[in-house]
Amino acid sequence: MRNIKLLIEYDGANYQGWQIQLVGPTVQGTIEKKLSILTGETIHLIGSGRTDAGTHAIGQVAHFKTQSRMGVHTIQKAMNSLLPPDIVIQKAEEVEEDFHARKSSKSKIYEYRILNRDTRSVFHRGYAWHFPQNLDWKEMEKATQMLIGEHDFSSFRSVGSPTYSAVRKVIRADWRKDPDGLIRFEIEANGFLKQMVRAVVGTLLEVGRGRISAEEFRRILESKDRKKGGPTAPGHGLFLKE
Amino acid sequence: MRNIKLLIEYDGANYQGWQIQLVGPTVQGTIEKKLSILTGETIHLIGSGRTDAGTHAIGQVAHFKTQSRMGVHTIQKAMNSLLPPDIVIQKAEEVEEDFHARKSSKSKIYEYRILNRDTRSVFHRGYAWHFPQNLDWKEMEKATQMLIGEHDFSSFRSVGSPTYSAVRKVIRADWRKDPDGLIRFEIEANGFLKQMVRAVVGTLLEVGRGRISAEEFRRILESKDRKKGGPTAPGHGLFLKE
Repeated sequence: MRNIKLLIEYDGANYQGWQIQLVGPTVQGTIEKKLSILTGETIHLIGSGRTDAGTHAIGQVAHFKTQSRMGVHTIQKAMNSLLPPDIVIQKAEEVEEDFHARKSSKSKIYEYRILNRDTRSVFHRGYAWHFPQNLDWKEMEKATQMLIGEHDFSSFRSVGSPTYSAVRKVIRADWRKDPDGLIRFEIEANGFLKQMVRAVVGTLLEVGRGRISAEEFRRILESKDRKKGGPTAPGHGLFLKE
Repeated sequence: MRNIKLLIEYDGANYQGWQIQLVGPTVQGTIEKKLSILTGETIHLIGSGRTDAGTHAIGQVAHFKTQSRMGVHTIQKAMNSLLPPDIVIQKAEEVEEDFHARKSSKSKIYEYRILNRDTRSVFHRGYAWHFPQNLDWKEMEKATQMLIGEHDFSSFRSVGSPTYSAVRKVIRADWRKDPDGLIRFEIEANGFLKQMVRAVVGTLLEVGRGRISAEEFRRILESKDRKKGGPTAPGHGLFLKE
């Protein structure tokens, strides 16, 4: 069996997230179906992480096993003809048999985009959260730095999550500001809990707008209590990077 | 009567262009309807130029007359609540009575976006023409420079245009390349013919891919014959700037 690694870009607006669900189209399901048509086999595609409904990916890594002898460039080309306009395979390569998109991943990077200005924008509307309030950058940066390192992120996971360990190691978290008001929050960690980035962003913006202080942010993190955390930022601002 | 100038941004995908048509929604029609609701008057909105079906605007200038005493900031805020997500008023200001969006405009700028790389992108899909062929930049730049100045652009207007003068003065035309393969063609002129930018871009890319030379491009321009020109690039790559 050959092991093929894919680098996938998608616009999540029309999908119930990455992973196959009982109801509604998913990115995994859409790609699996086309891969099965292309190879004539029943393909099982494993992604590096499950993105939420509406969340986008710039570089979702996935792999699948096949007996097909088709070249990787042909697989990529053929798949990009078969796939809808909101999913594209940016790269396909043959990898070692033991490569596993999820288990082989040492860290993941997410980006969250916010349009921080008075007036909304039609071009950012599906790809950034419009948040017009003024932000206290000093306080927000202070809170952001508290995320770095190994913590129990129970305060920033989706409500009703299973009780497996919520300890994750955040390697990096920073903000970039564009002159047009677009701000990008980039966070790298060894793994993420369900809705963790969106809950972190929602709470950091509560700090930014002055509703809570950086010190209160620290207490929320330490409380390990989701009820203490801020709102969950909408899924359409979130991008899975490599 | 007060005279109000608007700076309008829109995503043209769902509209039959700017100007009111017999069939299908238009940007002008959509905004006029909401302005009429807001002011309680029958508002007539005049734009600086008519964009084609599917074409976007970063800064379409328009004006309308009203007896309403509403402040311009209130007009902008209220309109942005009433308008659909693909149209937004970026600015509203009161101007002199004789200001006219079309007649007062000395020049206009259009940008055409092309994704020049092998693989398509989901995020550029509605906003750039995917053109994977290699481009001969030297030859294309040479042809581009031939546009500058006053010319009869009959070779680059839509088929079946009325016979008014096709003489326009191009002030500036240049290309910018982004590292991710996105290229932007920006052109400024004292006015544009219907589909002129799209026909110019379609023909310049014929030069770029080596089907015609820059010298042949000059002969096409001088022929004043639309049948000699290249294909019309699709509307979704085109943006009206201020």
